[in-house]
Amino acid sequence: MPFPPEATLADVGEFALVAELTALFEQGDHVLVGPGDDAAVLRVKQGHVVVSTDLLVEGQHFRNDWAEAVDVGHRAAAQNLSDINAMGGRAHSLTIGLGAPADLPARWALSFAAGFAAECAKVGASVVGGDLTRCDQVVVAVTVLGACKLTPVRRGGARPGDVLALAGRQGWSAGGLAVLTRGFRSPRALVEAYRRPEPPYDAGPAAAEAGATAMIDVSDGLLADAGHLAEASGVALDVLSDSLEIPEPLQAVAQATGADPVRYVLGGGEDHSLLATFPDADRVPDGWTVIGAVSEGEGVTVDGAAYDGDAGWTHF
Amino acid sequence: MPFPPEATLADVGEFALVAELTALFEQGDHVLVGPGDDAAVLRVKQGHVVVSTDLLVEGQHFRNDWAEAVDVGHRAAAQNLSDINAMGGRAHSLTIGLGAPADLPARWALSFAAGFAAECAKVGASVVGGDLTRCDQVVVAVTVLGACKLTPVRRGGARPGDVLALAGRQGWSAGGLAVLTRGFRSPRALVEAYRRPEPPYDAGPAAAEAGATAMIDVSDGLLADAGHLAEASGVALDVLSDSLEIPEPLQAVAQATGADPVRYVLGGGEDHSLLATFPDADRVPDGWTVIGAVSEGEGVTVDGAAYDGDAGWTHF
Repeated sequence: MPFPPEATLADVGEFALVAELTALFEQGDHVLVGPGDDAAVLRVKQGHVVVSTDLLVEGQHFRNDWAEAVDVGHRAAAQNLSDINAMGGRAHSLTIGLGAPADLPARWALSFAAGFAAECAKVGASVVGGDLTRCDQVVVAVTVLGACKLTPVRRGGARPGDVLALAGRQGWSAGGLAVLTRGFRSPRALVEAYRRPEPPYDAGPAAAEAGATAMIDVSDGLLADAGHLAEASGVALDVLSDSLEIPEPLQAVAQATGADPVRYVLGGGEDHSLLATFPDADRVPDGWTVIGAVSEGEGVTVDGAAYDGDAGWTHF
Repeated sequence: MPFPPEATLADVGEFALVAELTALFEQGDHVLVGPGDDAAVLRVKQGHVVVSTDLLVEGQHFRNDWAEAVDVGHRAAAQNLSDINAMGGRAHSLTIGLGAPADLPARWALSFAAGFAAECAKVGASVVGGDLTRCDQVVVAVTVLGACKLTPVRRGGARPGDVLALAGRQGWSAGGLAVLTRGFRSPRALVEAYRRPEPPYDAGPAAAEAGATAMIDVSDGLLADAGHLAEASGVALDVLSDSLEIPEPLQAVAQATGADPVRYVLGGGEDHSLLATFPDADRVPDGWTVIGAVSEGEGVTVDGAAYDGDAGWTHF
């Protein structure tokens, strides 16, 4: 740590902190101009640029008593990288805007940046620019840029007769949050999953290559995001609850709290799993599990019936 | 206005508000997928992608009692578009993250977005995506993407013997802030300049085509940003105060407050003028004024001497 452990952002000052943060970000070969100029400059191949942005707000998207700064960094990167994944693309570059109170420990910002950089390294993406400013709350604004070789996979292409498939862990983060909300710290695997989601970064491009007709990142909740896909495609979706994997630690939590574990899987959002539709089950690639079917109509059902659990998340 | 005038974000709800905001953003021909999917998809020509990001925080970068929401929108767009301008590029796409309290009037968000879109339209750029979330303060996170045909103009290329030149208004916004700080609302031209900067959007690409050796967006202050350029280039800069235009309304304010009007021009930052260096005065294009010279050494002087005025702005 280049600063005294108790040093705040105000103690360290903007320029010294930016220099330390920038040193954490390795630049890929595609970065002609990295952090430190008016803008970054990237060499891109002919094709499509995929871009997405997200805001994370302290107290709203993370709590500093439930997650270390390094975890918040992993998570902020993961949720953005996942948006590129959900188009069938691969992320190459990100920017970070960090708003923070003057009395925030400088080590928080450095640990956050280290976690962010480590998550980006999983897919070979570079942090190419950013902004640092004073704010009453910690606010993290991330924009991610990626490339997709093939036609991007949108939300609106599902057709009756397609199968619905899921890739990645689902319900783990929601289970971790349920544990933390009750004041517990275990099962550790679920708490870790809440702190650091593990999106299935290869599943998006694999689905695109396999001919997925529609795809979405599960961030609001499996049923909620299935609803967004159904609405955009003008179709009905049915989820077969027997096809959903209920991980062992989630069964344990459900038993302890008296809740139905399927509820976490259907309602949970922040694992950043992917939902996609494919023309038939034979085209569903490795890493994906068929969990339902597409038919004419509208809305999302579970085992053919309306589901009355907590199905999602809105910001206001 | 699609909502009752007194409706808040909480009254309107996230999805209805996003739908109204999205309708304000016209999409250019290069936008294959606009707002509403996991990510936007842009068709870009072979070449360089230029990207920059900025955070604006209520109370820090704007005050709602000094600026209408539409002005904040113009300003948020302008300061980002200017970063692309300063590389010699042209902006084509932007994303907006908006954090806001639940009791913010929905019309504030709509007016902000209308101003933002109108500023982007000046350069033909599209708002291709965004995020909306709850936050105690109003926070605006913008990322801008652009293209540059030629080699981008960086901060570090100035050489001894080059001339230093300025494009765009300088000192107007600082004059407007001085007026507002004293509780006045005139001269109106300065107050307007503080609310809505007018960056010289054609001057950046023109400088790149004319062979500018270095360029920077004046956002912290003319002398402060000249210092950044001098440091990155490893040269000394001297500004000739006689070459600086002192606009008439600034002279009036200086007279009323007893301040030296040159102080606003040298210290002011938020007009988003451009500073650049050129190999010789003959290559300085229309719209640019030679205001000084580059020599061996370090630091920035005014008329050959150190300047002791207020020369800039730091965030912590």
